[in-house]
Amino acid sequence: MLKAPDHQVAGHQAHAGKLGPLVDDSGRFYKPLQSDERGTKEAAFYSSFSSNSKIPTAIRRFFPTYHGTQLLEASDGSGMHLHLVLQDIVSNRLDPSVMDIKMGSRTWYPQASEDYIMKCLKKDRESTSVPLGFRISGLQTYESEKLGYWKPDKKVVQDFTLEDVKSTLKRFVSSNPSSNAEPDCLLASIIYGGSDGILAQLLELKAWFEDQTIYQFYSCSVLMVYEKAGVGEEGFRSRSGAEVKLVDFAHVMDGEGVIDHNFLGGLCSLIKFLSDILVSSTNRSKAEGDLKEQPEEIENDAKA
Amino acid sequence: MLKAPDHQVAGHQAHAGKLGPLVDDSGRFYKPLQSDERGTKEAAFYSSFSSNSKIPTAIRRFFPTYHGTQLLEASDGSGMHLHLVLQDIVSNRLDPSVMDIKMGSRTWYPQASEDYIMKCLKKDRESTSVPLGFRISGLQTYESEKLGYWKPDKKVVQDFTLEDVKSTLKRFVSSNPSSNAEPDCLLASIIYGGSDGILAQLLELKAWFEDQTIYQFYSCSVLMVYEKAGVGEEGFRSRSGAEVKLVDFAHVMDGEGVIDHNFLGGLCSLIKFLSDILVSSTNRSKAEGDLKEQPEEIENDAKA
Repeated sequence: MLKAPDHQVAGHQAHAGKLGPLVDDSGRFYKPLQSDERGTKEAAFYSSFSSNSKIPTAIRRFFPTYHGTQLLEASDGSGMHLHLVLQDIVSNRLDPSVMDIKMGSRTWYPQASEDYIMKCLKKDRESTSVPLGFRISGLQTYESEKLGYWKPDKKVVQDFTLEDVKSTLKRFVSSNPSSNAEPDCLLASIIYGGSDGILAQLLELKAWFEDQTIYQFYSCSVLMVYEKAGVGEEGFRSRSGAEVKLVDFAHVMDGEGVIDHNFLGGLCSLIKFLSDILVSSTNRSKAEGDLKEQPEEIENDAKA
Repeated sequence: MLKAPDHQVAGHQAHAGKLGPLVDDSGRFYKPLQSDERGTKEAAFYSSFSSNSKIPTAIRRFFPTYHGTQLLEASDGSGMHLHLVLQDIVSNRLDPSVMDIKMGSRTWYPQASEDYIMKCLKKDRESTSVPLGFRISGLQTYESEKLGYWKPDKKVVQDFTLEDVKSTLKRFVSSNPSSNAEPDCLLASIIYGGSDGILAQLLELKAWFEDQTIYQFYSCSVLMVYEKAGVGEEGFRSRSGAEVKLVDFAHVMDGEGVIDHNFLGGLCSLIKFLSDILVSSTNRSKAEGDLKEQPEEIENDAKA
C-alpha cells in the first residue's frame, strides 16, 4: 500500500492530487523523477554514488540507500511515472523530529542557464543562504502527546532571518519548541552532543568534504532526524537515534578535482551554530548543577 | 626615502605617476587610503583588529603590523594624502617569491550596492573564484640570478583557468617556473610542507576561521611569501621563511555571530590543492629515491 509520507517537511508533497513522493510499509520511499533533466540527474547521481568504490563505507550511512527506479501510478493520478526507490529515513521511527537544511551560500552552479542562476541568486539573497551558508527549508519537532508537533508554516520558514535560524536550531532540541518562552535546549546534549550525536556526524561529514573532489552538491539538503520518545527515561540516548542524512541530488555536478567549498563552508557554519548551542546549554546545566549542589553558599553570598 | 615597492604583485601601483603604496628603508609600507569609504573601512579594520583582545596571539602573526595613519606626499604628485602605515612584509627579504590569492567564491557582500554586487559577481564568475573559491591576483617567483623572476602579466593572471591555477601553484615552488616543461615542484616539501611551512600556517588559520565570528573578510587576500635564496644549501629550511599573511581589508564586515564560511570554503579549497601538490611531490621523490637505491633490480626488471 502506497501513501503520502507522514513526516515530510520540505519539497513537493503528494497531497491534494499533486505529484509527490510516496512511501510503503516496507520502509521504502518513492520519489517521482522530475520530468526535466533534474530527474535524470538525480537518478544518475544515485546510480554513480552507489557503485563508486571511492566512497568510504563510513560516509555511505549519510546517504539514503538506493534501490533503483520503478514505474508506479503517480500520486497525482496522471498515470504511470518513473520513481526513484529510496530508503524511507523515518519509516521505523515514532514521532520523528526532522529538519531539512539546504546547504551552501550558493544554490546555482556555473553550468546552469542564466535564468536559473538569477532565480537561485535571488532566493539565496532573500534567504539566509548568502549570510549563513545554509537555509532551513522546513522542520517539525515533536513536543508532546497533547501538543503534537511544532511545525512552522512553509511561508514562515521561507522568511526566516538569522535570528530565526538561531532560535529554531535551539527550539528543535527544546522541550518547549512552540512556546514563546526562551527555548530550554533540554535535549541539546543528547541530540547535538554525544559521541554519535548530530555534531559528531556532521564533523565526520566535514572531514570527508575537506578531501572529496568527486561531487559538487548544489541545492542538496542535510536532514537532521531524531526521536523525542523516551526523553528523560533511562537509555534514551541510544533510542533517540539522532541521525544526519543528505538528500536531494538533482543538482549534483562532477567535482572536477575541486572540493565542494560551497557545501563545506555552509557545513562549517552550521557546525558552529550547533556547537555554540551545545556549549551554552552545557554551561547552563553545569551552573544549575552547581546551584543545586551548593544552595547554602549561594544563599550566603546573596545575603553578604 | 620613500619609493615604490619592488615586489608588489597585485593592486594599484605607484609607478608612472599613479597613486600607489610606498615603502621606506625602515621596513614600513605606506598604503594610500582609498578616497571613498573603502579607505575609511580599511583603517577602521586595522584599528579594531590591533586593539581587539579576542584575537589569539598566534593569529596576529598572519596580519601585517599596523602603525596608524600618516599624511604623506602622494606617489602621483597630487599633494598630501593619508596613508595606512603597515609592516612591509618583504622588506628584509632577498629575491622574495610572492603570490597574492584573493579569497572566497564571492567577493561581494549583502550590504553593498546593486551595481557593486553585479560588478563583483561578474568578475567572480569570469575568474576561478566561483568554481575554486579563490583566484590568483598576481605572483612572482624567483628562478635564478640569470633568469630573475617569473612574473606572468596581470592580464594573463586574470584569465587563469582551473588548470592554470593548479599549474601555477606548482610552478610557484619549482626550480623551473618559466619553463614549458612539467614544473618539478622541487621546493614543495620545504615551502608548502614542514612544521612551519605554508600548509601548516594555513591550517592554523583555518582552525581560527572555523570559530571566529568577529569579521567577514570579503575581497581579502592570502599572501604566500618565501625566499629561494640558499636552496639546496644546508639550513635552507630555516632561511626560506615561508610565510602566510592576510592583506587588503577594505571590505571587512562585522561577523554578526556567523563564521566567514565564504573565506573558509576558499581556504579549504586552497589547502586541498597545496596538500595534493605536496603528496604527489613526496611520492615522486620517494619513487626516485627507490630508483636510485635499486638501479640494478630495475634494470633487470626492464630486461626480463
